[in-house]
Amino acid sequence: MKEIKIGLIGFGTVGAGVVKILGENAPLIAQRLGGEVRLHKIVDIDLKRDRGVQVAKEILTTDADAVLTDPQIAIVVELVGGIEPARTFILKAIEAGKHVVTANKALLALHGADLFAAAQNKGVRIGFEASVGGGIPIIRSLREGLVANRIISIFGILNGTSNYILTRMTQEGKGFREILKDAQRLGYAEADPSLDVEGTDAAHKLAILAALAFGIRVDFNDIFVEGIAHITPLDIQYSSEFGYRIKLLAIGKGDGKKVELRVHPTMLPAHHLISTVEGVYNAIYISGDAVGPTMFYGQGAGSLPTGSAVVSDVVDMCSDIIHGVEGGGSCIPFWASEKGMIKAMDEVVTPYYLRFTAVDRPGVLSKIAGILGEHEISIASVIQKGRRVKGAVPIVMMTHEAVEKNARQALRAIDGLDIIQAKTTLIRVEGDMI
Amino acid sequence: MKEIKIGLIGFGTVGAGVVKILGENAPLIAQRLGGEVRLHKIVDIDLKRDRGVQVAKEILTTDADAVLTDPQIAIVVELVGGIEPARTFILKAIEAGKHVVTANKALLALHGADLFAAAQNKGVRIGFEASVGGGIPIIRSLREGLVANRIISIFGILNGTSNYILTRMTQEGKGFREILKDAQRLGYAEADPSLDVEGTDAAHKLAILAALAFGIRVDFNDIFVEGIAHITPLDIQYSSEFGYRIKLLAIGKGDGKKVELRVHPTMLPAHHLISTVEGVYNAIYISGDAVGPTMFYGQGAGSLPTGSAVVSDVVDMCSDIIHGVEGGGSCIPFWASEKGMIKAMDEVVTPYYLRFTAVDRPGVLSKIAGILGEHEISIASVIQKGRRVKGAVPIVMMTHEAVEKNARQALRAIDGLDIIQAKTTLIRVEGDMI
Repeated sequence: MKEIKIGLIGFGTVGAGVVKILGENAPLIAQRLGGEVRLHKIVDIDLKRDRGVQVAKEILTTDADAVLTDPQIAIVVELVGGIEPARTFILKAIEAGKHVVTANKALLALHGADLFAAAQNKGVRIGFEASVGGGIPIIRSLREGLVANRIISIFGILNGTSNYILTRMTQEGKGFREILKDAQRLGYAEADPSLDVEGTDAAHKLAILAALAFGIRVDFNDIFVEGIAHITPLDIQYSSEFGYRIKLLAIGKGDGKKVELRVHPTMLPAHHLISTVEGVYNAIYISGDAVGPTMFYGQGAGSLPTGSAVVSDVVDMCSDIIHGVEGGGSCIPFWASEKGMIKAMDEVVTPYYLRFTAVDRPGVLSKIAGILGEHEISIASVIQKGRRVKGAVPIVMMTHEAVEKNARQALRAIDGLDIIQAKTTLIRVEGDMI
Repeated sequence: MKEIKIGLIGFGTVGAGVVKILGENAPLIAQRLGGEVRLHKIVDIDLKRDRGVQVAKEILTTDADAVLTDPQIAIVVELVGGIEPARTFILKAIEAGKHVVTANKALLALHGADLFAAAQNKGVRIGFEASVGGGIPIIRSLREGLVANRIISIFGILNGTSNYILTRMTQEGKGFREILKDAQRLGYAEADPSLDVEGTDAAHKLAILAALAFGIRVDFNDIFVEGIAHITPLDIQYSSEFGYRIKLLAIGKGDGKKVELRVHPTMLPAHHLISTVEGVYNAIYISGDAVGPTMFYGQGAGSLPTGSAVVSDVVDMCSDIIHGVEGGGSCIPFWASEKGMIKAMDEVVTPYYLRFTAVDRPGVLSKIAGILGEHEISIASVIQKGRRVKGAVPIVMMTHEAVEKNARQALRAIDGLDIIQAKTTLIRVEGDMI
């Protein structure tokens, strides 16, 4: 039985998952692959910490070059994360003619095009199944399973921490900060949660999915990103009354010309399948012109789920090596070299949920509605129950579809009125998710 | 740009979908593939019927050998369905060194092992993404995406017709026969619906998934199959009261030694993600030891969704051909040649929902409970509301986990009592779906 040697750089949470899977499921993987995956070297700056897995001491090293320059190693698994030194490690591995497997979404979102160009030049592959959706085989599904489709839209719950916080806010009626604190205590949120709750992590993953789905090179700065910190229990309560749930959604829509890419809290029909995705779970709801709507669901993070995706890429490459497939051969290329047309956020059209905090005085509603009308925003429904919050009364509206630019201008005008006591909350709505 | 010629045998609903996709998305597919898929010949016994797609007359023929013996054709797409002549066509194609793509679940379930052995001998591939779950890329996901996992369990809604009928029975409170008739009128059920509503179609698909997931050769007759025709609105109503939904579920569970394979109406917790899969949609809920629970959702049938899966296999093979991959090379083999250990249905352990139709007389419940106790079946909860159905009163129970053999023996004894007025309804329950 042929044996393929791999090197692992980064022995953290996911790295330990990979080691565990390759150990415990070795006979199963060997049987399925028709060959053996041998973990030849592990690199980490900290070789002392207990990872809960057994490894032979002699394969551990602090020197990345021990992997990058070892001619026996065919595949380098990069699980360092972040931009540097991960980027340099990957480029060195490619330069040495090694295939690369990575879970590094930030790096791919920002430097993917360069890395894939380098890999193509050297005839090696970059596997990145683990970069989006943890253990969910979404990269493979999008790239191969749905290859016959023009992708119409992607709606993704791509950040488990944010989904966990919003789920608990919905279930318990508590505020963002309180739940975040508890999530940190329980290990569902990092000490610095900004990448997760501000939407950046989800946007990194959206950049990768969009490159695959729409065949465009995405400039990360073209993605509109808004986090969940401003969502209040009041908004969640009102959204329930309207029959909606609030999720941090990564949205990609192609109309054949321009692609819309945005990450923000979104109100979705409560009965929609993706609205029922709770806690730390991720889901990607994709519609193609032939396949129609599909959804892929699973754990979006964690040692073993993400490890499962990493190992799936490793096995795939090993299979190619065993069967003598040349370089990047059987892998369908996807990372377009030309920048795509990303629609400016100002041009995006959606319905809106608006919550105004106004003084309780006659004529207020008419004043607000007047300004909305001037900006071509028409109101679909209003809730005004006279309940006071700190002396002011919330007026909540669902609008019909309106242009983002108009919505922002209208809110600027309205928030400048002396009858308005606090910044108006705006949440974008997805009604008919195709 | 390299061009690969394919031949299509069977120009029905799915065949027309394949032709449409290959036509309309040709530029997209060519760009993704780096080559061109050319539909070289189409075989069907009926060349006159309008399929709603444009094809050049000269590529149409009624002679299957025109495809099977054409040396230019590299890939044969078999969409005839059924056992013969589909089986002969596939074997001839393999013999001629051609790759085969098929959506034929019945054929694979019954003769898969022979066909895959023949393909392996000739170094060609059989693609069958379209055989399970329509457009859902479940074969690829199970075989490659989850390759690192020992599969613990599969719960599949694999038959759209049955799910459509059960969904409408649940929503409208109507009986099986009434909804079936309407489904036939609307085109959601065949004139002869037996393959769908009796569970056979779902069992064919389970046989394929089980071969992949558990690495065993499945003798189709070892799968326990029960249809949905005996489910009544009363059962659906009671299941709601207990907090459950009834779905026709294909279940596969591996405990490392034996594999449990069964298709039957199943009561699932109403809040479970797979319980929210409605109408003609399919979903496969798979748990792996590393990835945890995952779910794959989409349209399980239809011209374009199934066509999407067929074309994904075609593109995959074309990619291998373009990149000079030899034969069945890069495809991870899976169809075990040895028969696996399928657990006998008698040994299966689940909780049960039991609906007794008894005369309204004191001591009836104690009599029933006594017999259940004698067979080591303990009762978790009872509903007896005193509502009469044709002079008898329904007594509904949820049991704790019990052995199937005991449950059957107990029901035989109970149904023999003179206080029992009709055959007792038994529905198996899945509580904690891992």
